[in-house]
Amino acid sequence: MERSSVSPLYAAIDLGSNSFHMWIVREVAGSVQTLAKIKRKVRLAAGLNAHNELSEEAMQRGWECLSLFAERLQDIPAKRIRIVGTAALRTAVNAETFLSKAKDILGYDVEIIPGEEEARIIYQGVAHTSGGSDKRLVVDIGGASTEVIIGEGFDASALTSLKIGCVTWLERYFKDRYLTAENFEAAINAAKHTIEPIVEHYTQLGWETCVGASGTVQALQEIMLAQGMDEIITLQKLKRMQRQAMQYERLEDLDIEGLTLERALVFPSGLSILIAVFESLNIQSMTLAGGALREGMVYEMMSQMRHHDVRERTLISVQERFQLDIRHANAVTHCAMALLTACEQEWQLEPQAKYLLHASATLHEIGASIEFKKSGEHAAYLINHIDLPGFTRAQKHLIAELLRRFREQLTSLPEQHALSAHSAARLLRLLRLAVILCHRRDHTQQPPFSLSVADNTLVLALPAGWLAANPLTCAELQQEATRQTDMGWPLVIEESK
Amino acid sequence: MERSSVSPLYAAIDLGSNSFHMWIVREVAGSVQTLAKIKRKVRLAAGLNAHNELSEEAMQRGWECLSLFAERLQDIPAKRIRIVGTAALRTAVNAETFLSKAKDILGYDVEIIPGEEEARIIYQGVAHTSGGSDKRLVVDIGGASTEVIIGEGFDASALTSLKIGCVTWLERYFKDRYLTAENFEAAINAAKHTIEPIVEHYTQLGWETCVGASGTVQALQEIMLAQGMDEIITLQKLKRMQRQAMQYERLEDLDIEGLTLERALVFPSGLSILIAVFESLNIQSMTLAGGALREGMVYEMMSQMRHHDVRERTLISVQERFQLDIRHANAVTHCAMALLTACEQEWQLEPQAKYLLHASATLHEIGASIEFKKSGEHAAYLINHIDLPGFTRAQKHLIAELLRRFREQLTSLPEQHALSAHSAARLLRLLRLAVILCHRRDHTQQPPFSLSVADNTLVLALPAGWLAANPLTCAELQQEATRQTDMGWPLVIEESK
Repeated sequence: MERSSVSPLYAAIDLGSNSFHMWIVREVAGSVQTLAKIKRKVRLAAGLNAHNELSEEAMQRGWECLSLFAERLQDIPAKRIRIVGTAALRTAVNAETFLSKAKDILGYDVEIIPGEEEARIIYQGVAHTSGGSDKRLVVDIGGASTEVIIGEGFDASALTSLKIGCVTWLERYFKDRYLTAENFEAAINAAKHTIEPIVEHYTQLGWETCVGASGTVQALQEIMLAQGMDEIITLQKLKRMQRQAMQYERLEDLDIEGLTLERALVFPSGLSILIAVFESLNIQSMTLAGGALREGMVYEMMSQMRHHDVRERTLISVQERFQLDIRHANAVTHCAMALLTACEQEWQLEPQAKYLLHASATLHEIGASIEFKKSGEHAAYLINHIDLPGFTRAQKHLIAELLRRFREQLTSLPEQHALSAHSAARLLRLLRLAVILCHRRDHTQQPPFSLSVADNTLVLALPAGWLAANPLTCAELQQEATRQTDMGWPLVIEESK
Repeated sequence: MERSSVSPLYAAIDLGSNSFHMWIVREVAGSVQTLAKIKRKVRLAAGLNAHNELSEEAMQRGWECLSLFAERLQDIPAKRIRIVGTAALRTAVNAETFLSKAKDILGYDVEIIPGEEEARIIYQGVAHTSGGSDKRLVVDIGGASTEVIIGEGFDASALTSLKIGCVTWLERYFKDRYLTAENFEAAINAAKHTIEPIVEHYTQLGWETCVGASGTVQALQEIMLAQGMDEIITLQKLKRMQRQAMQYERLEDLDIEGLTLERALVFPSGLSILIAVFESLNIQSMTLAGGALREGMVYEMMSQMRHHDVRERTLISVQERFQLDIRHANAVTHCAMALLTACEQEWQLEPQAKYLLHASATLHEIGASIEFKKSGEHAAYLINHIDLPGFTRAQKHLIAELLRRFREQLTSLPEQHALSAHSAARLLRLLRLAVILCHRRDHTQQPPFSLSVADNTLVLALPAGWLAANPLTCAELQQEATRQTDMGWPLVIEESK
C-alpha cells in the first residue's frame, strides 16, 4: 500500500450568540478527524442593548477572538472554509460595523445566515451523524435562537428558527439569579408562547424519533450519565432535573451531580426551553444528536460524505482506518446474521439488535490492530473512544462490551441501556459462535451448521463426521459450549441426525 | 483512498523441544499483525529416553497437536508456510517415524533444522525486531539447546547451537526438584563446561550490545518489572534471582513476585544457564529481544520487511497504519531536532535521547486517530500496547509518557528507565515547544525562532513584531512559558534584540 498522502484541511467557524468556535478537521478514510478546536466565550448576545445595538466592548471581544482564528485560517484554502454568524448577529442593528472589521481581520466575509438556513445546516449536521432513516424531529437550543426541524434522510421538510435562546432566556427570566418556581414557570410559559405558532404544522407532519443538539441536551446527558440513568431524555426526567435545580436557592449555588461549572449558568434557562418544547410538541423521548451546526458546515463541504446509511458509512470508514481484514469481517458478519435469523422468531429481539450485532461482527477484529493478546480489551477501548456517527452512546457502549468478550474467557455483560439484558447476552452468544465458526478465515470452509433454539438453549448441529475431521474447530466449539453453559446459557454441539 | 485489500496470511510452525507453536500473521502496512497463536506443551524432549528414542506417547502428543494445526494450515498457500523442528527432533534417533506421520497430518514436510540454521533464523528474528546497528551478541535458551550468535545488522558472523536447554538441565540438575546451592552450582558448572569451547572465539569477535531471547529472559523481565527494577539484566540481578529462588526449598514451592506458574518449572534451570553464559562470556548487560525463531521465520518469508533501520521501518509503518499526517509529523520532528541541536552541548543528553525525541515527534498525533479530546491519553494507550520493533519496553514507556503530555496540561513524568529523569523532562519540554511552534500545520509558516539555553533555562527568541502578528501562537507560547516555569523549568519567550 502507498503511504497515505496529506488529506486536506477544512475549517468551520461559527460566531454564535454565546461563544465563537473554530473547528479544524481533516478527512481520514471517510471520517472527520478533529485537528484543532478553539473556543472563546465572547458573549455577543449579552452585549446587545434594548435597542439591539452591540456594545463596543462586545465587538472588541469578538474581534480579538477572530484575530486568533485568523492566524490559523491562513493555511486553509478558501473553498474549504465556512464562516457563519447566527442569532446575535442577525439581531444586531449595527452588525455591519462588526462585520466590516471582522473581514479585515479574517480575510474572509462572515456570512450572517438566516434562521432557516441555520436550521437547514443543523439538520445536515444531524443527518450526517445519526443512524436510521426514520422521520426525525430535531431541536437545537442556542444562545439566542432555537431551531426546530423535521426531516427524513438528508431532506428537511420543515425548518424553523425561534427567537428563544438559553442566554436570552437567562437574562429575561432568571435575571435575579433565583431558582424559584415562578422564574421557571415564566421561562417555560414564554417559550411555549413562542413555539405555539408552529405546533399545529409540526404535529401534522409528525415524526418517529426526536434528537436534540446543543449544550443543554449535552449537559442533560452528562447529568443522566453521572446519575446512572439511561440516555433517553423524557419529560419526566426533565421535571426531575427542574426539581433538583429548585433545591438550590440561587443560580450560583447550583450543584447538580454531573453538571459542569461551565454549563451551569445557562442550564436552568435551557432546561425551561426544553420543557416547553417537550410539552408544546408532546415529545415522548429525545436522544442527543451526534452533530449540529458545525458538523453540518463541515459535512456539506466534504460532499463525498453523503451516504444513504450513516451507520454503514461509519463501519466502512472504521474498517478502513484500522485496516481490518474486510473479507473476514464480512464472513463473520454473514455467519452472525445467519445465526440471528435462526433465533429471530424464538427470541423476539428488539429491532436494533440486528444492526448492533452486524456492527459488532463488522468491527470484531479492531482490537488486533493494537495487539493480539488483549484484543478484546483494546477493541472496547477503541469503540468507547472513537466517534461512531450513527450510533448512540449507549449503543457504542454495548458494542464495546460485546467486543471485550468476543473470544476467550466469557464473563457477563455489565449494565447497559442499548438492549434488554437478555437480548444483549444473546447477541454475545451469537457473536462468539460466529467468530469460532469462521476462525479458519477461508469463508468457503465455513462449517455447514444448522442452529436450533428452544427458549435459552441453542443446539448447533454439524454433519456427521465433520467434527472429527476438524479437530481444532471441534475443540473450540466444545470449549465454547462449556463456557456458555457455565453461564447458564445452554449450548449443545452435536452431529446432525 | 481505496478500501484495503486482503493481505496474505503467513504461518510459522515451530516444533520445539518443550512446546509446539503455530503463529498465523498477516502483513499490515509494513507491520506483522498476529491473527492466531496456538501453543501446546507437547514436551517432546521429556519423551526422549537414555538412548535418545522418542516414546510412543510423546509422538502421540505431537501428532495430536499437529492435527489441530493442520486444520488451519489448509487456508494458507504453501509458499507462505514454514515448519521447523529443533533440538529434540535433531536428537531423536527415531525422528523419521515421527516425521513421516507428521507429514501425513500436515500435508507438508517438517524441516529439521541444524543448530546453526536455527541460530541463523533466530538472529534474523532479532535483527528484524531490534533497534540500532550495533554489533550484537544474541543468546536464546531453548528447551534442549541454547543458541549463541554474534552479528551486525542483518548479518551474523558467528552461529553456535549448544546442547544446553532449560528442559534438559531441569531433568539433569534439578531432577530431585530441590532448589539447593549444590543443584544450582552443578547446573551452572555443566553449562559453563559446554560453553567453554566457544569462549575464546566469541570474546575475540566482541560485541557492543547483548540481547536475550526465549522464555527464561522473558520471565526475568516480568519479574524485574513486577519488582520495580529497570529492564537491564545484569549478573548481579541474576544472582539476586538465584538467592530469591533458593529461599524456597523445592521447585513446587517457588513463588517469586512476577514469576508465572507456567514459567516456574524451568526457571531455575534456565536461570542457571543464563548465569553460566554471563560468567563465561563476561556479559555486562542484556536486554530482551523483540523476536527470535518464529519472528525470523516470518520476517524471512516477508522479504520486503528488510529495512536498514528497524526503528525507522517501525515509525513509518505506524504512521501508515494510523494514517497520520506525515507532512505535519515531519515538520514537528524537524523542529524538535532543531531545538535539540540548540541544547545539545549544554545538556549533554544520552545518545538515545535523539531518537526517542525523533520517535515521539513522529508519532505525536497518533492519539488523535482515536479522539481529539484526550489525544494524549490515547497516544499513551496505543504506544504502550502496540508492538514497536526496535524500541525496548522502557523506551516505549517513555515515548508513551511523553505523548501523554505533548499538549495541554503539563505534569511531571513518572519514573522511567529509558533516560535520566533530567533528560526525559528536557525531551518533554522540547517536544511540547515543537508542537506549538508547528501548530499552523503549514511548515513554510514556522516561526523563525532561535533557542538559547543556560543550564535549565530556555530562552526562545522571535523576530521583533512576530509575536504581535501571530496572536494565537503568541498566546500558546506564553501559556507554555508559564506552564514550564511553574514546573521549575524556566522558559522565556522574547523578541530578538
